[in-house]
Amino acid sequence: MKHQSILDRAIQANHERSFFAQYPEHPKAYGDEGMQTGLANVQGLYNNFYKGLLQENMDNSVGEEVSPYTQEPLNVRYPTANTAVFIKQAQHAFSSWKKLSKEQRADILIECLEQIKTKFYEIAYATMHTTGQSFMMSFQASGPHSNDRALEAIAAGYEALNAYSNEVLWEKPMGKFNLKLKKEFHAVPRGIGLVIGCSTFPVWNTLPGAFADLMTGNTVIIKPHPKAVLPIAIVVEEMQKVMKANGVDIHTIQLACDDSSKLITKELCEHPAIKLIDYTGGSTFGNYVESLQGKTVFTEKAGVNSVILDSVNKIDEVLGNLAFSVSLYSGQMCTAPQNFFIPAKVNTAEGELSFEEIAEKFKASVAGIANNPKMGPGTLGAIQNELTAARVKNIASLGKQVLLESTVIANEEFPSARTCSPTILVCDASDTNVFEQELFGPIVLLIKTTDTKQAVSLAKDMCEKHGAITCAVYSTDTTKAEWIKEVMESVFAPVSLNLTGFIWVNQHAAFSDFHVTGGNPAGNATFTNSSFVDRRFVWVGHREVIA
Amino acid sequence: MKHQSILDRAIQANHERSFFAQYPEHPKAYGDEGMQTGLANVQGLYNNFYKGLLQENMDNSVGEEVSPYTQEPLNVRYPTANTAVFIKQAQHAFSSWKKLSKEQRADILIECLEQIKTKFYEIAYATMHTTGQSFMMSFQASGPHSNDRALEAIAAGYEALNAYSNEVLWEKPMGKFNLKLKKEFHAVPRGIGLVIGCSTFPVWNTLPGAFADLMTGNTVIIKPHPKAVLPIAIVVEEMQKVMKANGVDIHTIQLACDDSSKLITKELCEHPAIKLIDYTGGSTFGNYVESLQGKTVFTEKAGVNSVILDSVNKIDEVLGNLAFSVSLYSGQMCTAPQNFFIPAKVNTAEGELSFEEIAEKFKASVAGIANNPKMGPGTLGAIQNELTAARVKNIASLGKQVLLESTVIANEEFPSARTCSPTILVCDASDTNVFEQELFGPIVLLIKTTDTKQAVSLAKDMCEKHGAITCAVYSTDTTKAEWIKEVMESVFAPVSLNLTGFIWVNQHAAFSDFHVTGGNPAGNATFTNSSFVDRRFVWVGHREVIA
Repeated sequence: MKHQSILDRAIQANHERSFFAQYPEHPKAYGDEGMQTGLANVQGLYNNFYKGLLQENMDNSVGEEVSPYTQEPLNVRYPTANTAVFIKQAQHAFSSWKKLSKEQRADILIECLEQIKTKFYEIAYATMHTTGQSFMMSFQASGPHSNDRALEAIAAGYEALNAYSNEVLWEKPMGKFNLKLKKEFHAVPRGIGLVIGCSTFPVWNTLPGAFADLMTGNTVIIKPHPKAVLPIAIVVEEMQKVMKANGVDIHTIQLACDDSSKLITKELCEHPAIKLIDYTGGSTFGNYVESLQGKTVFTEKAGVNSVILDSVNKIDEVLGNLAFSVSLYSGQMCTAPQNFFIPAKVNTAEGELSFEEIAEKFKASVAGIANNPKMGPGTLGAIQNELTAARVKNIASLGKQVLLESTVIANEEFPSARTCSPTILVCDASDTNVFEQELFGPIVLLIKTTDTKQAVSLAKDMCEKHGAITCAVYSTDTTKAEWIKEVMESVFAPVSLNLTGFIWVNQHAAFSDFHVTGGNPAGNATFTNSSFVDRRFVWVGHREVIA
Repeated sequence: MKHQSILDRAIQANHERSFFAQYPEHPKAYGDEGMQTGLANVQGLYNNFYKGLLQENMDNSVGEEVSPYTQEPLNVRYPTANTAVFIKQAQHAFSSWKKLSKEQRADILIECLEQIKTKFYEIAYATMHTTGQSFMMSFQASGPHSNDRALEAIAAGYEALNAYSNEVLWEKPMGKFNLKLKKEFHAVPRGIGLVIGCSTFPVWNTLPGAFADLMTGNTVIIKPHPKAVLPIAIVVEEMQKVMKANGVDIHTIQLACDDSSKLITKELCEHPAIKLIDYTGGSTFGNYVESLQGKTVFTEKAGVNSVILDSVNKIDEVLGNLAFSVSLYSGQMCTAPQNFFIPAKVNTAEGELSFEEIAEKFKASVAGIANNPKMGPGTLGAIQNELTAARVKNIASLGKQVLLESTVIANEEFPSARTCSPTILVCDASDTNVFEQELFGPIVLLIKTTDTKQAVSLAKDMCEKHGAITCAVYSTDTTKAEWIKEVMESVFAPVSLNLTGFIWVNQHAAFSDFHVTGGNPAGNATFTNSSFVDRRFVWVGHREVIA
């Protein structure tokens, strides 16, 4: 294997879950010159037909992306075709891709990542102008972090394929003689995988499923969100180039674009040849995908993430950390906290603080980020979807006290950017009808509880009923912290305890943090544990008598 | 660990898939005296309330078993209760069982197997008089083979729990300092598992799911088939004794009996506290179980298994082997072949034989077993279910040529036994409406094809549409054999090639043969691969800043 050492390190890291990054996260690691050429290259794609994809028989084109930073159409048209064309080409590619050894597939897929790496800057600008993420987040999330999560899926998939002997002599003592069978165990891929992308993380949420499918021998059709195609189109183009260079059918990976006026997602999902579906997005469609019979389905859906404030040392550091978490990409991360359960009284190193005092401090901290011209635009980015902006604007309709109103964030570079600073509402513990909804975007609810016990009970209920991907807990009491971890893990929510400084509850690192547990309504799968890969193929054991 | 060495050997065998049996299959290995005391003990249970179970708060009793050998009721009454009682007790037991370490659980579960071993004779007679299996099959299938499959599930479950570090220091270089997080990864069990038993293999098909659930920290409710309770009741009794002796809540495993006039299976399945379901049985109910949302489901359903005769050396050995396969337990094994695809001409060492010549030879071979008083009763056993017997009797209604009629098999020991020798029908390749059904029981269809290509194509179609657990292939042409394996594995059916002598397509050995692939409609799960265990719990990763 050409990339044996990368694979070996990734396999080890996958088991250890300690820090590992094959792809450093800072843009500087990839050469400063890429910044300008990357921007120029992406701008060259605007107002044009996207020519880079190698996939054939495309007889139509679609494109409706709008930059959240300029609020102007990108005017990129993507080639597309009928569902039947994608399926036929994926089936044809499957007949050869499935025959490659796991070493061959791992090598080609790692080469894909190395090739994608050469386009990190292009992918970053494309992500920025489709999702509204800041440049830095766009670079990291769609570039090195996505590649690392893809490598994690390769490693996990390779390990799963390696679980059993490929051939064995089975020799059963029968008294006077031994019965001998030659047995072969084949890991047979299921067929064609469909990966349905989302509008906020079009690469990060797409690559794990796609690489898990490919590593285990399946071919892949990526159906991007029609509003966030460009970054994943660049990725697929680079992968198809690598496939071609290796003599592999380029249709092993295809991009199936559609138009929001005529979505092809259900048609693809329900096609009998589609055996695997990876989905990221809203719960209604996610529940539909999960209900499909005869498909192996991996989902990440909506959830409501909680913060539980029990007791803290430095309250300002804690609230500063949380303010950053809700500001980062304007709360449009699936990991962002929404429901802050705060008891009437909270112990801090500065003495007991009331709910109201903490609320005021938090308000100041959030406003401080939003109103800081050096920090605000780069942290908050822009709002991907008009519906999200509308939800923030109409927040008063929820009928709760608005502690901090959302404002527009002035962005010098992009004066037309669609922005909203976080709005903060105050609720009572009895307002479950308000806080049991996912209020996607920069919306924070401070919920006053009688005590920590009630806070934990409510956070648990929300997670059990509506799902959660993260839970931030602050407690200086070790016994209480252990108890909260136990309660939250009973509903399959991971706890981030006492985070301050340069680590935020929103961040899930490849090779270490399992993203989504798969145990509550926020999704049925995890980046990347064994069941994320071992269900994508089937063990078939043949046997033959040896005379 | 007390049973470390057993566990270590089982883990190794699980990966190697070479021959391994912790529990030798021959009764002699367990002492001859058990034969008589076992029989006496089981007879002592007849016409009585079953007192052995330790589970509490049972306020009702049911029992409707009839021996297929005597066709008389066993008159055993089993304690039972409302669904709510079982759930409440399972939940209470879960709160402590989930807290044991994987080593503690493995030790207790292996001790359960060692305890069950002391009752192999009792379990054998109980199996015989509920399922109609012969004594020898009853002993092996419900005794050592079941224990080995349970041990395989323990080993696989232990390995899955061992997949990742339990605690790690995650240290991310940030330039001037390292960010440090302590991370913990917990394997959190899902909750309560329901295991739904079948009437023909009430122990063998039940233990893998039950032990996989238990090993991974879930508590279990076994819902046996109301016509085959006794063998699994003995097993559960012994397990509850071991739980008690180890200070474990006995309700960690419960037996929830019901009456066929008022089945509680759906009520249990749909209860929100039931998170895991293992099911063996018909496809209609199996599809219902698979359609339930929010449950993790493992099924083994119906299928139609094929034989493909391409070319053979010793035709009589081949047909003898196949005749035994269809006779064993009168075709009531889920692995028994049904559809024999035989080309118009078959090459053999004796020269080319026609379909008709082969059919006649096969008929003679099957009749030879059935009519041999030393072999017939012990091979064919009895018919578990009256519906199966009726299906055989009415076989002429299918409108196909009956080459061999079913007869009653005289059984000296049990003159009232419900028996049917195998019936053989002749079909054309166009009779898909006949051979696409599972004709459960001693029914064999010889299907005349133009050539091997058509035979393979039909076998593939049947498997894809209706499922298959086995496929017996005979070919002396290595290239053709490889091609048939490739075609059949594309629909996830394992091929047994050229079996003759003391090995039959029906047999699936623990630690080596994956039972059911999970890739076609015959079921969605496998005894025992990694996805049979790793979906029964959820990885939850907590993290905490280290100052």
